[in-house]
Amino acid sequence: MKRLLLAAALWLPTVFVQAQSDSAFIAQLFEQALSKGKAYSDLRDLCKQAGPRLSGSPAAAKAVQLTAEKMRNYAFDSVFFQDVMVPYWVRNEETALKLSSSDTGFHSRDLPLCALGGSVAGMVSGEVVEVLGWNDLQKLPDEQVKGKIVFFNRPMDARMVYTFGAYGTCVDQRVYGAIWAASKGAKGILVRSMNLSIDDYPHTGSMAYVDTIAKIPAAAISTQGAEELSALLVKYPNLSVSYALGGENKGMALSHNVIGELKGKKKDIIAVGGHLDAWDMAEGAHDDGAGCIQSIEVLRLLKTLNYTPNYTLRSVMWMNEENGLKGALAYAHRADSLKENHVAAIEADRGAFAPRGFFIQADQKMVERMQTWLPLLEPYGVYMIKSGGAGADVGPLARVNEKTVLVGFVPDSQRYFDYHHAATDTFESVNKRELELGAAALASLIYLMDKYEVGSWSMP
Amino acid sequence: MKRLLLAAALWLPTVFVQAQSDSAFIAQLFEQALSKGKAYSDLRDLCKQAGPRLSGSPAAAKAVQLTAEKMRNYAFDSVFFQDVMVPYWVRNEETALKLSSSDTGFHSRDLPLCALGGSVAGMVSGEVVEVLGWNDLQKLPDEQVKGKIVFFNRPMDARMVYTFGAYGTCVDQRVYGAIWAASKGAKGILVRSMNLSIDDYPHTGSMAYVDTIAKIPAAAISTQGAEELSALLVKYPNLSVSYALGGENKGMALSHNVIGELKGKKKDIIAVGGHLDAWDMAEGAHDDGAGCIQSIEVLRLLKTLNYTPNYTLRSVMWMNEENGLKGALAYAHRADSLKENHVAAIEADRGAFAPRGFFIQADQKMVERMQTWLPLLEPYGVYMIKSGGAGADVGPLARVNEKTVLVGFVPDSQRYFDYHHAATDTFESVNKRELELGAAALASLIYLMDKYEVGSWSMP
Repeated sequence: MKRLLLAAALWLPTVFVQAQSDSAFIAQLFEQALSKGKAYSDLRDLCKQAGPRLSGSPAAAKAVQLTAEKMRNYAFDSVFFQDVMVPYWVRNEETALKLSSSDTGFHSRDLPLCALGGSVAGMVSGEVVEVLGWNDLQKLPDEQVKGKIVFFNRPMDARMVYTFGAYGTCVDQRVYGAIWAASKGAKGILVRSMNLSIDDYPHTGSMAYVDTIAKIPAAAISTQGAEELSALLVKYPNLSVSYALGGENKGMALSHNVIGELKGKKKDIIAVGGHLDAWDMAEGAHDDGAGCIQSIEVLRLLKTLNYTPNYTLRSVMWMNEENGLKGALAYAHRADSLKENHVAAIEADRGAFAPRGFFIQADQKMVERMQTWLPLLEPYGVYMIKSGGAGADVGPLARVNEKTVLVGFVPDSQRYFDYHHAATDTFESVNKRELELGAAALASLIYLMDKYEVGSWSMP
Repeated sequence: MKRLLLAAALWLPTVFVQAQSDSAFIAQLFEQALSKGKAYSDLRDLCKQAGPRLSGSPAAAKAVQLTAEKMRNYAFDSVFFQDVMVPYWVRNEETALKLSSSDTGFHSRDLPLCALGGSVAGMVSGEVVEVLGWNDLQKLPDEQVKGKIVFFNRPMDARMVYTFGAYGTCVDQRVYGAIWAASKGAKGILVRSMNLSIDDYPHTGSMAYVDTIAKIPAAAISTQGAEELSALLVKYPNLSVSYALGGENKGMALSHNVIGELKGKKKDIIAVGGHLDAWDMAEGAHDDGAGCIQSIEVLRLLKTLNYTPNYTLRSVMWMNEENGLKGALAYAHRADSLKENHVAAIEADRGAFAPRGFFIQADQKMVERMQTWLPLLEPYGVYMIKSGGAGADVGPLARVNEKTVLVGFVPDSQRYFDYHHAATDTFESVNKRELELGAAALASLIYLMDKYEVGSWSMP
């Protein structure tokens, strides 16, 4: 017992000093980010100079060069590209949704519309069958669907506080709607945008076809448009609609992941990243320009404060998260081939909002140990470290090495779906301080994971 | 020991059941607010139908009627007014800030400007003395200030994570600048707006004069304008500026606090409120339409869920927080006269942003006891209950009864000063979900304070 007390007496001051120095270092990270940060101007450059950068597009190629140049200018130890073949889809011209009815009193009108990403081209016109999802649709006799346009109109559930949860239980309409509808003979689909606000912006996003079922033109309409269409269908049941899409699959194109490094004492790696591609409706500021730029800022902040990492720290800009995940798959494949050991991989792909915490994909004991850092982070509004899905781009790394700790950065989620995949996702929709706090929160966690060598923690 | 264990065994299940029922009730509050809430449309009405509602103005009178009508329509048990005499100041016409210089190469230009609230009218022109605050100014010989215009240009400190802290250490320039400058013979002042963003919007706000020192015209310029003016003063030291303000003090006017009640089993009161007046630059959506409407929504939510309060619950719309605090002073005076016992008073005046927590002005033991509720609130992003200043409008109640627990609602602070006292503080700057989450967070805390009868807790 005496020995234990002695050990405790020797040990406690060390912990105290460490915690003090950690808290001082983390304070410096936040101060740097908030008063001398580069994230906001770097994000402006990415949004305004590269712009909408769907995989395979000239804008995506420009974004690859621009982010590499940023990291070279910050004198990272190495900056390199990884070749990735990605699908290249282009929207081309498309019409609004035209409504018409022979009923007296009906005034013809247009509603805003956009093709879902990957949709085939085509002109469609006909009557509308409104459903809330597959449950509704499967109950309808095929003859009630055949030759018509299926309108999927299930709203995101406003009651879910974490909005990604509401997205997860709603997005099946967008992803599988065209397959479901075509399997019952429909000739097109309209999907209510994945958006919790009622506004006039259609939101695109990925969708699936299967080769055994007809590929039909698939489009999103705005939430306001969906409310209007639904009300009009009650009033004018013989309402018909028409639209034309120009979507074109241009096959595979050469693109790149972009990787920057600060060399550590060890070759083991902590990677932090976002995806460089973005849908073609806007500048992809929140999705996911912010995550890319924050990942660069993490390394720049640590370097600026002369931190010497134990592990090699990597900023990774994965290509093609939106419609293929080819970059993340290639990155994990390369890690496997080269026997690169990722002790941790952190994904930032939930928007440039004020930080709230981190989701950890790892053993519960690991989560609990990381939770002991919360007192260091709470002064900055980061109060949540818990088990949860990290993200699509880091996911494949867990299949290479199950010990890799995957982390998802969780900012406030309330406004994310106002911008996600829509024309509203511009640089102007980003608040400078929220972006900077996110970068500093990421830098703080990575500092702690690196300093305390998360890769060496022996977990049962 | 046995008896203790028995007591624990009897006690624990009760606590568990209670916690379960509390968590279920709080879940209902959030679900109601997010899916069937009235706060967003009520705030739209206040912003669009009443509009900018500086104390004494016709718009303020309209806001008094509108909020009372809302509460009557929700069938609160009683709705009444309290007469309050308030200062009535009007802006009248004012110019931009005109810059001129005889230097070659200088192109004359205008910068956006607005009078500080309460400023005297007047035309001013002359050279500029730029300072960071009183520390700078007092060191200057009077002859370097006399007849000139003092430009207070100390920015809010971006490093402070909680932005109200940065405001608190910066706002002395706005409040006392005219007194300081006039005491050294200046004929006008320009103040850099209290804004962490760099943009083109001047922010007004209260200021002070003293009768023994000349009252000089005082105006704010935008942060972008301040940066430009500062840079131009380096390049063109003989730069001169001119501006004209039209501010007019119209004396005292009759106005009202607006109060709505749900009667409790006891006469003791829990009040929740915001201030109904707003600066005249915009609609006062964040400052403080949101707090007023959320306070109405708190009672409406509890009533909708058929909650029977122990205490009498009050929504209070205080008049004249911005330039006098007359409403809050009158309210506390009335409470004192009528021997009304406020067991708690909660203020919502930090914008319509996603909730983070509450500041408590009470004994530390009380704070610790309230902190035991955090597990019930954390699922909604409310993780912080700690000692801190509650707010200006509830403050006077503590002087009536030191046992009154004062609470300040603390939403995320990052964007607040983008809107505060500026033309940007419009309904459109409010996110519906963030507003609703705030209302539900307030309702949850008030439910817990009421159910567990915070007024009966015997504190040492």
